[in-house]
Parts: sequence; C-alpha cells; structure tokens
Amino acid sequence: MISDGMSNGTLSMANLYSKNILGRETNWMNLYLENKASRALMDTASASSIVTDSAAASSSFGGGFRVNNGSLNVGPNGEQHLPIWQKFKKKGKKAGCVTSVTITHATPAGFCINSEKRSAEPEIAEMYAQFGFDVMMGGGDEFFNADKRKDKKDVYSTYKAKGYQILKNRSDLKNIDKTKPVLGIFTTGALPYSIDRSHTPELQNTPTLAEMTKAAIDQMKDHKEGFVLQVEGGKVDWSAHANDIAALIHDQLAFDEAIKAVIDFAEKDGNTLVIITTDHGNANPGTIYGNSATQNFNSIANYKFTNEYLLNNIHNDFNTQQLKDWVFENNQFSLSDEEANHLLNFYKGLEKEEEGLYNYKKLPYKIYSEFQKKRNNVGWISMDHSGDYVELAMYGPGSDQLKPFMKNTDLHYLMLKAAEVENNF
Amino acid sequence: MISDGMSNGTLSMANLYSKNILGRETNWMNLYLENKASRALMDTASASSIVTDSAAASSSFGGGFRVNNGSLNVGPNGEQHLPIWQKFKKKGKKAGCVTSVTITHATPAGFCINSEKRSAEPEIAEMYAQFGFDVMMGGGDEFFNADKRKDKKDVYSTYKAKGYQILKNRSDLKNIDKTKPVLGIFTTGALPYSIDRSHTPELQNTPTLAEMTKAAIDQMKDHKEGFVLQVEGGKVDWSAHANDIAALIHDQLAFDEAIKAVIDFAEKDGNTLVIITTDHGNANPGTIYGNSATQNFNSIANYKFTNEYLLNNIHNDFNTQQLKDWVFENNQFSLSDEEANHLLNFYKGLEKEEEGLYNYKKLPYKIYSEFQKKRNNVGWISMDHSGDYVELAMYGPGSDQLKPFMKNTDLHYLMLKAAEVENNF
Repeated sequence: MISDGMSNGTLSMANLYSKNILGRETNWMNLYLENKASRALMDTASASSIVTDSAAASSSFGGGFRVNNGSLNVGPNGEQHLPIWQKFKKKGKKAGCVTSVTITHATPAGFCINSEKRSAEPEIAEMYAQFGFDVMMGGGDEFFNADKRKDKKDVYSTYKAKGYQILKNRSDLKNIDKTKPVLGIFTTGALPYSIDRSHTPELQNTPTLAEMTKAAIDQMKDHKEGFVLQVEGGKVDWSAHANDIAALIHDQLAFDEAIKAVIDFAEKDGNTLVIITTDHGNANPGTIYGNSATQNFNSIANYKFTNEYLLNNIHNDFNTQQLKDWVFENNQFSLSDEEANHLLNFYKGLEKEEEGLYNYKKLPYKIYSEFQKKRNNVGWISMDHSGDYVELAMYGPGSDQLKPFMKNTDLHYLMLKAAEVENNF
Repeated sequence: MISDGMSNGTLSMANLYSKNILGRETNWMNLYLENKASRALMDTASASSIVTDSAAASSSFGGGFRVNNGSLNVGPNGEQHLPIWQKFKKKGKKAGCVTSVTITHATPAGFCINSEKRSAEPEIAEMYAQFGFDVMMGGGDEFFNADKRKDKKDVYSTYKAKGYQILKNRSDLKNIDKTKPVLGIFTTGALPYSIDRSHTPELQNTPTLAEMTKAAIDQMKDHKEGFVLQVEGGKVDWSAHANDIAALIHDQLAFDEAIKAVIDFAEKDGNTLVIITTDHGNANPGTIYGNSATQNFNSIANYKFTNEYLLNNIHNDFNTQQLKDWVFENNQFSLSDEEANHLLNFYKGLEKEEEGLYNYKKLPYKIYSEFQKKRNNVGWISMDHSGDYVELAMYGPGSDQLKPFMKNTDLHYLMLKAAEVENNF
C-alpha cells in the first residue's frame, strides 16, 4: 500500500484532522496504538538523485534496483530488471494493482513492466495485457479507448481477447465474474479527488480506493497459490504538488479507508503480510506554530472542494466581489480585496501562469495556497517531491523481522522472502 | 537526548550530508542500521495547541502533564507538576542537564523546575540551586553573573555556598572535582553555533555538546543509585527558526556526536536506557526535487558560517559588489545584482525588518534563505515550530517495550518505570 508522495506531515495531519474533526484516530495510527505493526524509516533516493520521482521509486520496490528518475525498471545502462508482479505471476500467484490515478501511472507500472520512460502510458496500457495480471483498476480510459488514443487502437479489445472482463462504473464492482481477470477503468484520466467526489453526486459513479481494494481482494483471495496486490493512493501526491491541504487530507483519509479494507481481510486471513508506506515525501506540509493554530487547522473542515475545482471555476470576467463570494462559498473565509485582485490578475493574464507537474490548466495553486496558509496555519516547502526518509509500516506474519532502517530497494527482497518466493529468475 | 525542534527532514538531511560529504552514516542512523534501537512516532501537542513550544513540550516529558505553551510544569489552572529530575533526586539518583543554549532555557528547565513563564530565566538560574542538581552545563552567564543581571545579584555565589564548583571554560572540563556538584556556564547567552565554532578559533574555548555530555557522564556514572542526564541540542531549533540549513545540519551533527558519547558509555555500562528524540518539529525543512538536487544539496558543504554571522557582517555602506564578494567568500556562490540589492535594502531601511523568536538583531534571514534555496534545493514551511509527529528512539534495557506511537507525556512515566522509580510523590 503506497500513499504516493506522503510526507511525514501528511500522515500526521490526516490523523490530527481525523481526531479533531471526525472524532477518531486513523486506521494507520490505530495499528500503532494497538501495537500491531512494525515500523521502519526508509531512504527513498533514486540512482540519479537524492530526491526520487515515482517511477524510480516504484522501480526500487518493484525491480530491486535503483534506476534514474523517469525510468521504469530500466537501469542507467539499459539493464532490464524483472518487475516483481511478473516474478509472482511466474510462481503461480495472482497479482493486481488498484490506484486512484491512471492504472498506467508510474507506481503501478513499476511493479508490472519495463519502460525507459514513465510517460509511455499508452504503451504501458498494452504491455500489461501480456502478463495476465489478475486485477487492474483505476483511471486511464484515455490510454485504452480507441476514441481517445492518438493511434485509435482499441486496447480494450486486446484485453477482451485474453478473457478479461472490463469494468467501467462503480456499480460494475458488484457483478464481477470470479473466474475471469479484471480490467476496471473508471475515468478518462485519474479518478476524482476524494473531497470533490464526496460533494459531487455525479462523481460518485466512480469507486473509492477502498471499494476497489475490497473488490480486488475478493477477486484474488481464494487463489490457492496466494496473491499480491498493490494499492496506490496516487492523488495524495497530486494534492501535495498543488499544495492543496483539503485535497491532501481527504485523499490520505481515502487511502486510510483502504488500509481498513486490507487489515480487515488480513486479520481474518492471518496469513497475509501488509506493507504500508509511501514512495517519497512531497512538499513536507506541516502545521505552523501560532496563537490560533488549532482553530485555524480545524477550519480546513469548512473546505468543500479541491483548489483545482475552486480555481477552475474562476473566470476572467469575475469582479472582486464575485471572486470573494465564490471563495467564501467553497472555503468559508473571506479574501481581502487585495488578495482577490491579486488572484484575478492570473485570470486576466496580468500575472505569469504557474507551471507544475499535474497543473494541466496552469492554475494559480501557489498563490491560492499562500492565502489559505494565513488562515489554516499549514505550510509547504515547495510544490515538488522531497528527499526525507519516510514512514514504512508492516502488519502480519514476517513483520517482526523489519529492521528500523531500510533502503527502498530492500523492500523488493523483503516481499519475495515474505512470500517464500526464491529470487531465481 | 533532545535535538530541539528537529523535524523529520532535519534528521534525514543530517544523515544525507554525513554520507555525501563526510563519508559515513550518523551515529543516530547507525543505531537503526545495526538494529540496536526501538523507534516510536510521538505526538508533541501541548495543552493549548496542536503545535507546542519548547516549554510545554519539556513539561510534557518533565512533568507528565500537558500545559499551555510558555509554561514550565504549571497547568492551565495553576497546578504544579513535580519535575522529573526532582523526583529522581528524591530517590537518591544524581541528575543533570547539558545544553548548547542557556542552561535556564525551556528544555532543561522543564525537567527541573516549575515556573509560570519560561522567560523567567534569571529566576530559574536561582531556582536550580535549591534542588542540588549534580551537573548543569551550557550557556547563560547573563542570568548568573552580577555584572550582567539587572538586579546585580551574584547567583554564582549561591551555588558556591552550596558547594558547587563553577566551570567557565572548555579547559575547566579537564579538572573537575568528582566530589562536588558542577555548574558550568561557558557563554553569556547560548553557546556558539557549531559551524561558526569550527571556523572561529576564539570560539573554541567553549566546549562542544559532546564534550559537556562526556564530562557530565563521567561526573555521575559512579554514583551507586544511578543517574539521569538530559542532553539538549538547543541550537538545532534556533537554526530552524532562522531557516539556516548549514547551521542546522552542523548542530544536528554536533548533537549526533553527543549521541556517540552517550552510546559509547551505555554500551559499556549495559544498564543504561538512552532515549533520543526531539520536542517538536520546526520549519519541516527538506530537499526538493530537481535536476541538480544532489549537487545543489552537497554545495552546503561550502558554507563556512551561519547566516547569522554572514548577515551580521553586512553593513549599510556595502556596495553591490562588496556584498556579493562577502557572500561568495562565505557561501561560495554568487548572488545576482538584483538579489544583492534586494538584500542591501534591508540594511538601508528600505525593506521591513524581519522579526523572529531568536532573531535578536532583526536580520533578513528569510530572504537570504530563499536565495540559498535556489542554490541548495532545501525548502522550509515557515520560521516556526511544526506539529508533525516526531522521531523517538530508545537504546538499552527496557527499549524493547516501546510501543510504535507515544504521546509526549507517556515519556515521563516510561522514564520513571525504566529506572524502577515508583511515582509516589
């Protein structure tokens, strides 16, 4: 289970929010409070940098070797490292991935395939079919659908020819044929942010990460040779890239619900190792000292939508008051006239557009996050990944063997060992 | 052992710097790599806020109760909580504190005394004498010396009358009388930052944290009833408040040398529990993704002095080139003319002075740190404490009992239990 781009502060603030607003600890923290999990600090560097991207990070876990940022299980000299889900498949296990971003994104891909470039998502969509993975669920219709692909290839038909059932909607999760492998693609790109989903009825025909996780486990749990499943909270990373605190907390909590689904199964099963971690930090968000820090932090509960949604719905013909009303409607605080005009300038082309990895529409995330920071006491070091050592937790048989410090690549060999799979490929 | 204000990123970057520049892991990380330590995640909140100050934090450890920020073992309704070093003294143990800031500062004070206000350092200097602590070493002559105190009271004479020996210089550490308690006050205020100390011969008449730590252990280790010692890396917090990465790393490494002194003793002794932690995060510094992240981070090795020293030696009659030369001399990078002029504006009164907890001279720390960030890829969320859960490590007998998640107050009871001291006061 990988909460992508989860800095230490993200884990802390999700629990703080859960306690202060929802009145309970997170499932992740409960594992610690109940003394059920082992913990390690993990070094996430890649071959090319002290700060990894998600492709190199997933390759460290998935291939057992550090590669350059941007690559998926292809080393600096072109070496191909066999991805771990292929190893498990060769040994007769079932294997799958579920994610809140595109199923062809770096984190699932790093467990499944080799590609020099993570950006080759259309090709990755095709590659998966070769290896017969048993459950692949997430977003990414743009890479499977003939109408949306540049090459107009119908990748779904390849999967159908191999006996896959194709899921398109949340309701399809209820009618899965247990005898066939599953490809579930629920959205064009990534799945919606959890906070937007919970306030937008029409987004609720997409499944939650926990729902996909449960379905994937149900689909594979009775296999005699066992199964492996990767669960990625991919939108945690995207929220951190946008410095969007409400999006971040709600997607971390959605990941936490998936933890519950997994632990519920693992507790009953008794023979499953659960590994919960992240691939790298992102933006190191944290609460900041101040007179009203608690009250300010708690005000995040008033935010109804992502900053992406909020900023996307501001138009260059808004006047100052309209903008202020819109922000108040969504975040329950009032911008000053000066702030509102500053923000409007981005829409009027008077301020330089912001760039950013997932900032497709060049929205003014940074300046808006700075306005929020004054009201919610949450700060960020940047809009990109960080090189901090990260949290790694393990539950179940073998977890007591965890050492206090790990390299990300160690996890590859630990997974094989825990499953009693000899690394003879 | 408390590295004051140590965010997760501080621990990570100190190890990264140690590996990349010094060619070895830190002593802290070695405890993990050698599987010698237990770890927990610790919640550091105070009674009044999700983000604690050092007084409330030390009171949580020291008194076993959360109090409001600013207070030392005095609860919101005036409750007095008996400080843990007094408890240990009552049970016949020796007790001491060493710190790189003033010995009357919040972190040592929270283990020793009750005071509604942490700022009462002149009074705290007098209070310590009442309880007969065995070794108190750090800075703070301003609170003991008749010539420097407002009330002209000679506090040293109080200590002398109680049989204390007074240490003033590093060399005094070599001639300690084992039969007398020790008050070692080496500087007017805090001890120098480690990076300034190592490049300034005249500062080397002050001891390092490791040297004070060794001396304190030697002084107390043969006591039949055992001893307790608090070691505070107080300047780690101050560096984070200044967003000064070189100061931060070098003071964290100085703390790490003190860890070595402690573990060397504890390994030989075999009957000592060592607890290594922080009281709260500060500024959540971290390395940021980017093309030259590694090279940029490693350039911190070129910084010779703290930003305090560098900025303190800029004068309002500097011209652009003089400023650029000065920065290059100390940090080995070139400011642009625009940056240099921006910085000079602070000295010419054309920019608003910066405020800050330990920014006594209102130096432009923030803007200078932003210039550095562009060259070293290290970012900060603010210039103040953060509420992240923090790292807690334990070595020695009893450390295997550590649960994965702790509240800061739990540590109070754990220390008593580990020392087999009944909490009947």
